[in-house]
Amino acid sequence: MKLSTYSFKWFTILFLLVALQAQSQHTEAYKHPPSEVVTIHSRVLNEDRKVYVHCPKSDSADLNKRFPVLYLMDGDNHFELLAQYADYLSRPDVSAMPKIIVVGISNTKRTRDLTPTNSIMDYLGKPDSSSYKLSGGNENFLQFIKTELMPLIDKSYQTEPYKIFAGHSFGGVSAINCMLTHPDMFDAYIAVSPSLWWDNEYLLKMTDEKLKTGSVLNKMLFYSNGNEGGSNSFFHKHLLKLNSTIAKKKLKRLDYMYKHYPSETHMTEPIVAYFDALRFIFKEWGKDR
Amino acid sequence: MKLSTYSFKWFTILFLLVALQAQSQHTEAYKHPPSEVVTIHSRVLNEDRKVYVHCPKSDSADLNKRFPVLYLMDGDNHFELLAQYADYLSRPDVSAMPKIIVVGISNTKRTRDLTPTNSIMDYLGKPDSSSYKLSGGNENFLQFIKTELMPLIDKSYQTEPYKIFAGHSFGGVSAINCMLTHPDMFDAYIAVSPSLWWDNEYLLKMTDEKLKTGSVLNKMLFYSNGNEGGSNSFFHKHLLKLNSTIAKKKLKRLDYMYKHYPSETHMTEPIVAYFDALRFIFKEWGKDR
Repeated sequence: MKLSTYSFKWFTILFLLVALQAQSQHTEAYKHPPSEVVTIHSRVLNEDRKVYVHCPKSDSADLNKRFPVLYLMDGDNHFELLAQYADYLSRPDVSAMPKIIVVGISNTKRTRDLTPTNSIMDYLGKPDSSSYKLSGGNENFLQFIKTELMPLIDKSYQTEPYKIFAGHSFGGVSAINCMLTHPDMFDAYIAVSPSLWWDNEYLLKMTDEKLKTGSVLNKMLFYSNGNEGGSNSFFHKHLLKLNSTIAKKKLKRLDYMYKHYPSETHMTEPIVAYFDALRFIFKEWGKDR
Repeated sequence: MKLSTYSFKWFTILFLLVALQAQSQHTEAYKHPPSEVVTIHSRVLNEDRKVYVHCPKSDSADLNKRFPVLYLMDGDNHFELLAQYADYLSRPDVSAMPKIIVVGISNTKRTRDLTPTNSIMDYLGKPDSSSYKLSGGNENFLQFIKTELMPLIDKSYQTEPYKIFAGHSFGGVSAINCMLTHPDMFDAYIAVSPSLWWDNEYLLKMTDEKLKTGSVLNKMLFYSNGNEGGSNSFFHKHLLKLNSTIAKKKLKRLDYMYKHYPSETHMTEPIVAYFDALRFIFKEWGKDR
């Protein structure tokens, strides 16, 4: 009896050892392609700003190569997404766009920075001073990008002059406002579901007034909306109005694309819209090679 | 003259100090939500296998929560993409799907693992023994997942029983083959551009023979193709054939979706197809809350 208990014990230990070996495993941290967080002091905005920077993985052929830069608003929402699209779509076996640098701008006072006018009206036209009191700082924010951020990025990374400006919602408002007021800052503009309701359709009026062939020669523009408020929503109507305003002008050499995603919400749409925007902007890429 | 040189020196130093301060910046590494690389020894496959595991960021409400698991083939291609979709789409302000765990399986011998039969014929029907000599190991690969990988993941992470199996190209072949031969292994199957040309349309025949209501009750299936070979290509024809075969069977409670992306290539399509697949699989999620 004792011997059999003894044998049983050893058998159990042996069994556990074999079982352990079968499950032998080793765990380590997954390494993402590296990105950087750069904190800079902005004198224009009088505050520290954080930006996220993702550079292409360089191989020996890239050592002296320079890359286009995509500047992205709402960096905390969509920086990882854009960095990954850029990496994946520029892989040699995918080859849908060039390698680019992605700069994601983190927010401090989002409404202040991403709205072109001071207005306290919400999308229903009702006053909401607690949310919108500080609005109207977009020109300052664009000056920060132009005079402080861009020189820093150009100094620190292997940039080429080609630049894209991308934003969602209020970020889309900023992209269009930038194209209207400082068209030469960027070569391509992406406005995913821009909040065209802002300040009594301010941007729609400005587009009608200001958009001229001369200022947007050889520029590209992508804009879109999801199902915000259903198919009869003001969001969709505004985008259709923007689209017809642009179409009517018959602008020479402004290459633009409008996409409507009826099954996507305001927050799911950026995933597919940013992908389509990159595909649009780089549609000719690689064709002459 | 000396004094003026002296002043000039100090002025230069002062200017440099001011200039430096204006560009004051601080750079640190960007931190991604963590993922793990788990290396396990498979007795079924007689080799070490690497899998990448991404768990949702847990907050205090999640401490005892369990999560569905998405098993992804070709982990080296699309793991980061799926992990990011899962994180972003489950954010409280996006709320398009539940938090899930993503397990990306890295390849060793891809053709061996992801093809259901031994065949040396390429997509044109020509023999290519150097590429396809070892093909036909999909049953073994599925046994590895079922008897080794799944138990390990269930033991090591906070999983719930709901599981998704996702693959692209040969990975799409594996997803469909698994649904036909081991339908109960997963609750939902994603086949992005499955290579239905494999072995003289083996899977199309098998689908016609084997797919029955009883085996796919309450299952979900997403399949798609891009522009492989243009609109008249064998790829597109095969997917249309799969779609009509499934439609004809009028399977009760198999919820399926077919999507065609005419402007995407074989390699760009997964970005949008995996997004649409997740949106499809979780279309009812959150509606009853």
